[in-house]
Order: sequence, then structure tokens, then C-alpha cells
Amino acid sequence: MRILGIDPGLRHMGWGIIDADGPRLRHVANGICNSSGDDLSLRLLSLFDQITTIIATHAPEAAAVEQTFVNKDGAGTLKLGQARGIAMLAPARAGLSVGEYAPNAVKKTVVGVGHADKRQVAHMVRVQLPGVDISGPDAADALAIAICHAHHGAGQGLAAAVARARA
Amino acid sequence: MRILGIDPGLRHMGWGIIDADGPRLRHVANGICNSSGDDLSLRLLSLFDQITTIIATHAPEAAAVEQTFVNKDGAGTLKLGQARGIAMLAPARAGLSVGEYAPNAVKKTVVGVGHADKRQVAHMVRVQLPGVDISGPDAADALAIAICHAHHGAGQGLAAAVARARA
Repeated sequence: MRILGIDPGLRHMGWGIIDADGPRLRHVANGICNSSGDDLSLRLLSLFDQITTIIATHAPEAAAVEQTFVNKDGAGTLKLGQARGIAMLAPARAGLSVGEYAPNAVKKTVVGVGHADKRQVAHMVRVQLPGVDISGPDAADALAIAICHAHHGAGQGLAAAVARARA
Repeated sequence: MRILGIDPGLRHMGWGIIDADGPRLRHVANGICNSSGDDLSLRLLSLFDQITTIIATHAPEAAAVEQTFVNKDGAGTLKLGQARGIAMLAPARAGLSVGEYAPNAVKKTVVGVGHADKRQVAHMVRVQLPGVDISGPDAADALAIAICHAHHGAGQGLAAAVARARA
């Protein structure tokens, strides 16, 4: 199954696609969607178009989006929510089911502990997707979300594979 | 100019359309888009499809969305942000410019004070759009946002018309 992971953000939205064949994982592509400018509606439209193009190009069969931390910054949470709405809509509009995972669940699946830092996540993504060239921390997080979805969605002994890769 | 106003919300999204011909305002349509269920991506898709249909049916030339209060409830703000992302995206995707107005600015334009309650807003919307049948409080707010956009976007003596209607 081909899985698209998305780490939502208004300025930088990370994305990563993997193939999960039972316990085997293979990197397909990853990158960052950027948006800037004063007009929020045009920024959201740009992100929507970029994700829609990624889906059309790589034809994932499922998607997963990080269930982002709600911090104390209300304005920041609102911005993130708007970007996250787009990250959820684009795959749903393409007919994909969209899983949601809390950051701690993603880290626990990929690194083994819920409070890993970004470098640990990127390191374990590289271990589990040999040869991957990661576009940046947001793309690493997105690949981690895709790996998490493969693990939880697929079942079939993938936990063992993740454990092997980690050993 | 035909203007679509949207009061964003995940469960209930109010919408209202008016025609603004210089200082004259005319009601076109209003209603509520609803979404429910456990799957967030499908709820956002449903809202997107409903707003897209409204735009296709009534052909507004501009849109305006409430710049929602950021309250202390982070989870609530995130939900609202996701719905608001959809409310901004749908008109932008249809090629409309999308204005943003803070609730206080809307109330100040429509009622004359920034801290009016919902009944006052609905009352002044009825005064300014004679004969309107309002679908509910969210639709009244959406019509108020459209009126606010007509006022700020159009200029041309509309302030005087609003003042006359209020007198």
C-alpha cells in the first residue's frame, strides 16, 4: 500500500510517501510545500494545489496527517488549524481515507519513545527507509507519519519489522 | 457586486449572499452548512462541497470570512481553524477574493457597536435586508459579514446607507 504522510503547517508543510508491502517499507518521495504572502486564502489555495499535484503524481492509496499539538498560542493554533484543514481535505477529495496520529504516537512508533527530538526522528526514518534523501525536518516528520500509518493500518507483522530496523 | 459572507464552524457553517449596488443592499440567499460524524476529513470534504455548490448556484463575485475569536480552548480553536481553512479555500478556488473581518469590526459596521449580541446582529441584518428570512444565528452572522464587506469593500457612500438604515 502506498501511503502519503503530511506534517501540516501554513508556511512549510512536509510530505512523504512510502510503499508498505507487509513488513517491508520503501521510500517513494518526500518534500516541502511552501506558502508565503499576505493573502491567507491564496496561501491555502497554493498548499491545496501543491498537495493535489503530489497526489496526482504519486497516486497514494491512503493518507495520514499529524494531529498537531495544541499549544498556548491561540493565533498560532488557528493558523495551524487552517493549514491542517487543507492537509485533510486534499486527500479526502482525492478519495483517500485519512488517518490522524498524535505526535507522541508517531514518535513512539518510529523511535520507540514518545518524546524523541526531531534529529532522532530523522535518524530512525533513515534507518527504516535506506537510501532516503530527506528534504528537511518537516519532510522527515511526514515520512514518520506515513511509517506510523503503515504500522497501525497494515498490521501484518510490521511491528516486528520496525523493531528489527530499530535493533 | 454579489458578496458571499461565511461564518466558519465545523458543525455549523453559516453563509449569506447579498447584492450591493452602491449603497443599496439586497438579500439573495442564506443558510447553514452542517457536518457531523467521526471522520474529520469527510466532514471537511462535506463542508467544502456544500460551499462550492453554493458558489456555483449563486455566482458571488467576492467573499468575506469572519476572523474568528481565538479563545482559550486550544482544541476548539484547532477545530475552528480547520473549518475556517475550508471556508477560505472554497471561494479562493473559485477565483474569488476573500476578505477577512474580526467579529468586532463586523458588529461595529452592522450594529454600530463592537460588542453587540447575536440578537442585535440578527435584528440589524433584518433592518438592512428587508424581507429576509434568516436560517439561524450563524446565517445572520454570515449576512452581517457580507454587509461588512460591502461597506468596506465598496465604499461609495454605503456608510451613509448603513447609517440611514440604522436611524
